[in-house]
Amino acid sequence: MTETVSPVDLTTLTSLCKRRGFLFQSSEIYGGLASTWDYGPLGVELKNNVKRAWWQHFVWGRDDMIGLDAAILMHPGVWRASGHADHFSDPLVECLQCRMRWREDQLEQPACPNCGGELSEPRHFNQMLTTNLGPVQDDASLTFLRPETAQGIFVNFNNVLTAMRRRPPFGIAQIGKAFRNEITTGNFIFRTREFEMMEIEFFVRPGEDQEWHQEWVRECVDWYSALGLREDRLRLRPHDPDELSHYSKATTDVEYRFPWGWGEIQGIANRTDYDLRAHSQHSGETLAYFDDDTREHVAPYVIEPSAGVDRAVMAFLVDAYGEEEAVSAKGKAEKRVVLRLHPALAPVKVAVLPLSRNERLAPTARRVHDLLRRSRAIDGPVQYDDAQSIGRRYRRQDEIGAPLCVTVDFDTLDDHAVTIRDRDTMAQDRVPIERLVEELRGRLAQ
Amino acid sequence: MTETVSPVDLTTLTSLCKRRGFLFQSSEIYGGLASTWDYGPLGVELKNNVKRAWWQHFVWGRDDMIGLDAAILMHPGVWRASGHADHFSDPLVECLQCRMRWREDQLEQPACPNCGGELSEPRHFNQMLTTNLGPVQDDASLTFLRPETAQGIFVNFNNVLTAMRRRPPFGIAQIGKAFRNEITTGNFIFRTREFEMMEIEFFVRPGEDQEWHQEWVRECVDWYSALGLREDRLRLRPHDPDELSHYSKATTDVEYRFPWGWGEIQGIANRTDYDLRAHSQHSGETLAYFDDDTREHVAPYVIEPSAGVDRAVMAFLVDAYGEEEAVSAKGKAEKRVVLRLHPALAPVKVAVLPLSRNERLAPTARRVHDLLRRSRAIDGPVQYDDAQSIGRRYRRQDEIGAPLCVTVDFDTLDDHAVTIRDRDTMAQDRVPIERLVEELRGRLAQ
Repeated sequence: MTETVSPVDLTTLTSLCKRRGFLFQSSEIYGGLASTWDYGPLGVELKNNVKRAWWQHFVWGRDDMIGLDAAILMHPGVWRASGHADHFSDPLVECLQCRMRWREDQLEQPACPNCGGELSEPRHFNQMLTTNLGPVQDDASLTFLRPETAQGIFVNFNNVLTAMRRRPPFGIAQIGKAFRNEITTGNFIFRTREFEMMEIEFFVRPGEDQEWHQEWVRECVDWYSALGLREDRLRLRPHDPDELSHYSKATTDVEYRFPWGWGEIQGIANRTDYDLRAHSQHSGETLAYFDDDTREHVAPYVIEPSAGVDRAVMAFLVDAYGEEEAVSAKGKAEKRVVLRLHPALAPVKVAVLPLSRNERLAPTARRVHDLLRRSRAIDGPVQYDDAQSIGRRYRRQDEIGAPLCVTVDFDTLDDHAVTIRDRDTMAQDRVPIERLVEELRGRLAQ
Repeated sequence: MTETVSPVDLTTLTSLCKRRGFLFQSSEIYGGLASTWDYGPLGVELKNNVKRAWWQHFVWGRDDMIGLDAAILMHPGVWRASGHADHFSDPLVECLQCRMRWREDQLEQPACPNCGGELSEPRHFNQMLTTNLGPVQDDASLTFLRPETAQGIFVNFNNVLTAMRRRPPFGIAQIGKAFRNEITTGNFIFRTREFEMMEIEFFVRPGEDQEWHQEWVRECVDWYSALGLREDRLRLRPHDPDELSHYSKATTDVEYRFPWGWGEIQGIANRTDYDLRAHSQHSGETLAYFDDDTREHVAPYVIEPSAGVDRAVMAFLVDAYGEEEAVSAKGKAEKRVVLRLHPALAPVKVAVLPLSRNERLAPTARRVHDLLRRSRAIDGPVQYDDAQSIGRRYRRQDEIGAPLCVTVDFDTLDDHAVTIRDRDTMAQDRVPIERLVEELRGRLAQ
């Protein structure tokens, strides 16, 4: 298998994302907030499409899955039981002079990189962000911003079991924000302190966990592939025993080949019954199901496919990016940048382009735009663009990944037909306006 | 106009929400976290539907609106410029003994309600939650959890203007979490410390702001009405001058008549050019557009329709709740609880019910279920339920607001037709399976 690397480097991608409204540096006018990013008008559509595609596939598309949306703020006891209060930490050295903290294994010399000061012995610094709730700021009001969404699922296990009348095997899916006070951030939206996760906790009978683990690894890879990620830029990496999290019996990462190398976009862990047992012990409430065969209450094992929303967005962007030679309207060779996003992910589905900004074309072009914008068949934004030459407007739509352009020209005024132009093939087809919605619906549903 | 009050009280609603999987108390097995709630399997679908209906209507449905999704964490300078660091506070008295804080205007006697201790003079306590980012926990690393999403829009004004080539009038819409350290919380999900907002900042030319303010008040009320909220449970309440926020020239609230009385579900504020000017001054970057008529750079005025997602969810639940007399399958009069949610909001769109749990019916019922579940025409979950009598299953679907049930009976095996049962009218119609998807699509698109 040959591995292809995307032609895009991080600088080019970041620049395109800013120029076209996918991603902006957070609080940029104040100098930014380290490794924090805001999704712009196209970015929010792309991100929402990723989340919706995931939810449609894994929740609505399956008989054995239901959703949940737990709060970011939880009782601090949750994090003591889960082990995060004790174990979710990095060993750091602290500068005795400027108080900056560093990961010792990443230091090149034994003195503070910031001020040259003397460094402390390594100590464990917890990666959870904290805040204080309520009218008194003391230890009793201290709580955490969740570092994973999973615990919201575990503590609701009995609630869901009762309300939804489920028995293993079944899963609970959740999408939401999480926070980690990462020391080393970077690579654009790859590693940030605030991020969004798409997590499933899939509950199975003990003994069936290894089989389900393998099954879920396949399911996850298939999902990325179905949405267009190239298979030669995807690989599986099982964790070595010494890098497993404190709760995990086995973990396999799905990695994508980013411009700087392979990076995790999803982990599939076998969390065993670690979490449910821990919460049963700490809360005093038994989290278990009644097994009809063995006639006893059993804590199920848990397979956890856990994906980063922002990392998925980034992988889809990198993968979709292409540069190629194209011939301009005037017959000249020029570079074409094109985002070959899957139609389900594309932030703009269709662009309506009058051949030129012209008062005879405008009313018809606007009518076509209104027709598409109000149609439920096109499940997303429809742009209208009449600024600059038609060639430049095609390039603009290519660069933001709009799968289809609809061009209204002077013939349209007579034959009531428009031209559909395909982003990937650049082929153009003439279609009567009365069949336009159905034609677009069919092409977008590919 | 007579004002109707929903027959549901808070206890009944909270109980239904827990029993049917709409809402659970957060961290319940640890005794809960004050006024924090988790959305269960049906709740997350309902909430997502509210957000999606809003986005479809206000972003995709309009030519003059685009979206954004800024991070929760922002540069602390944002909150100094916006005035929140100085002005976003409650005057509280503090107990000198137990350190609890209280709102003086809500105290019945001049001693601590907790311990009877002596109280301090009133001081301003900021309502923003704080956290520390990065490897050092000091003043420089202190930042805030945003108390509103609006500022993420203001600081990105130039980015959006450039990337999307916009000029006023146009708006930027955003949905996201915000946090406030409320002293007085309660009324279920009405007032919580973690909540979700749907906000628009609509930028207009100065002088046109009052007209646009009125226009947006109408737009907002129309949206709630179109999704089914009864007009006699909605009212407008303009703010008195002395209750206006520090940034507002005029604010009108949309209020809903909850079981405990009128409560705000949306505010529409005229924020003038307060925020853009403040950020221009503090950041040194001019946030303005170039006015072609006057040939100068102008800071636009801002109309802000700001809605609470959780409050909208609660209003839709309260409004949809009904109790009525119905006749059971056995001819007995019984109480029917029905959530008359708009089909676009209903967390389950269709339920497939075999007449009884029977091995002859099951294969056909499963086939019908698969057909509907995989159809893109039904944009949401399709349940399968074969537990208990058909009458009880209809009641269960009524109680969670599923607009349509599809019943598979023994005739189906011969005539390949099923019965569609309507939640609101309880009317039953026989439809061939081959026309079922189209029939359901039409009924759900009402």
